[in-house]
Order: sequence, then C-alpha cells, then structure tokens
Amino acid sequence: MTEKLAIENLSEKNFDEFVKLMKLFADFEKLTPPDDDARKRLKRDGIGKNTKYEAYLFKINDKYVAYAIFLMAYGSFKGMPTLFLEDVFVLKEYRKKGIGQQILNFVVKKAKDRNCDRIDLYVLDWNENAIKFYEKNKFKLMNWKIYRMENKQII
Amino acid sequence: MTEKLAIENLSEKNFDEFVKLMKLFADFEKLTPPDDDARKRLKRDGIGKNTKYEAYLFKINDKYVAYAIFLMAYGSFKGMPTLFLEDVFVLKEYRKKGIGQQILNFVVKKAKDRNCDRIDLYVLDWNENAIKFYEKNKFKLMNWKIYRMENKQII
Repeated sequence: MTEKLAIENLSEKNFDEFVKLMKLFADFEKLTPPDDDARKRLKRDGIGKNTKYEAYLFKINDKYVAYAIFLMAYGSFKGMPTLFLEDVFVLKEYRKKGIGQQILNFVVKKAKDRNCDRIDLYVLDWNENAIKFYEKNKFKLMNWKIYRMENKQII
Repeated sequence: MTEKLAIENLSEKNFDEFVKLMKLFADFEKLTPPDDDARKRLKRDGIGKNTKYEAYLFKINDKYVAYAIFLMAYGSFKGMPTLFLEDVFVLKEYRKKGIGQQILNFVVKKAKDRNCDRIDLYVLDWNENAIKFYEKNKFKLMNWKIYRMENKQII
C-alpha cells in the first residue's frame, strides 16, 4: 500500500532535518556534503522571500523521510520555463513504497502550475534505480553532454 | 587579431535581431526554432523587471553577430548559485575570430559577479567544435545523464 505523505515547505523549523537528509544524499551520490558555510548559505537562500531554490520535505508519521529541491530554468526556443529538478532523495529504508512516485507527481503538478513545458534533471550514470524510475515515468534521455566549469576557473 | 565586440542587453530595440539569431541557432542545432507564440513569450520573459532569463547581444561594426542566454540555477550541496549557460551562438561567418572566447569571458565575469562557483551547460553530442572550445576553457565533462519529461506528460 502506498503510504500517505505529508508535505512541508522548507522553513526554520525543519531546516536541520533538511540538511541531515541532504548529507545522506551526498553520501549516497559519493559527493561532498554541505559544510557549515554551505549550511548557512542554504538557510539564507532557501527560506523567506527571494529564495534561490525551492525545497520541500516529506514526512510519514511525523518522520522526515525525503526531500526535493527544484528551481526555474528556461527553454529559449520554446520561450517557456523549465522546472529543473536538482535533488530528490528518499531515505533508504523508505524506498520501494511509492514515495518517490508521490514526490514526482507533486513536482509535475508544480511544473504545470508554473506553466513549465518540461522538467529536466541530471542522473548519475551509475544510478540504475533512478534511471529506471525516470524512464518508467516517460523521462527521455537527451543526447547532450553536460559540461561544467568549476570554481578555480571562476573565483 | 581579435575583433572588438560591443555588448547590449536584450531590449525592445534589438529584440527582432535576437530572435533572428536564435532561429539560426535552432537551425544549426537541428531543433525547432521559436514560433510566433514563443516569440511573444520571449519578449515578455526577457525584457524589463522579473525576467525569467538573461540575454545579451554582441555586435561588430554595428552588425549583430552573436547572442548568449543564461540564468541562475543553484548547487544544493555547495549552497551556491550556478550560472546555467542556455545558449551561445556566433554567426557562421564570424566564427574562428575569438568572438566565442570574448563571450565566454563575459559570462565567466557574470558568474563571478553573482557569486556562482560554477557554470553548467549542455552540448549536443555531435557538436565537436563546441566540445573542443569548452574543453580548452577547462570545462569538464560530467558523468551524468540528462533526462527530460516533456509537455505531453505535464500539460
């Protein structure tokens, strides 16, 4: 049976839980988790007015089990906003229960509400479960490469 | 010798030239160029306050020869904004003159001014000239796949 999720906006109240989940996601992805400075910036940039990203936490029976972050990008040739799905993470022991699907449905509804005509996301190439999940949900693999210039070249 | 570029913000004045360049870019990329409705949305979303993307045009001797579009994304684990470079296009007959390099330098400066610690972009996998150019500029290929859900699944 699919479990009923409660959804919360990121706030002062759940911020610590949010960072805790984000650290677990970074570990899972074998990436560097947020340090203390990143934590301060995440608080400043994600709560209140003029936020730079939008985050939601998901609870089951008062336990925070998942989070999602997205932001608004833009598709120039279409002239329409793109929802860019930055992070989706479900605690390991809560996977395979339909929670990811409920979160994706929530995100698709947000995309619709914001007049986005598409949702983009990056998947690590070894993350087969994520790839299966997104393909099942009609996401298509794009024949594009992602290139990144990092801080040493910029700052 | 590198030619001297004049830089203009997107405005009512240069909007028609902007769309003309964008159509040429779409043709080059074998993608669908903006139609009349997209054109209206591009005008509404790119000029004035609360724009959804940021666009610049580049001129040599009063001829519009290039454009660039970027927007602000966000890197959650770092807690820092990412400059997402949506489009860079230089007219065919003006390539190989260092114009792309001047545009990239301009974009890198923007990233620095906005406290971004990175610049992300997508390159079509067959666009070898672009790949060479970005690799020369220390962009790194990320081991991620891009997945996209398109309008039929959303609207």
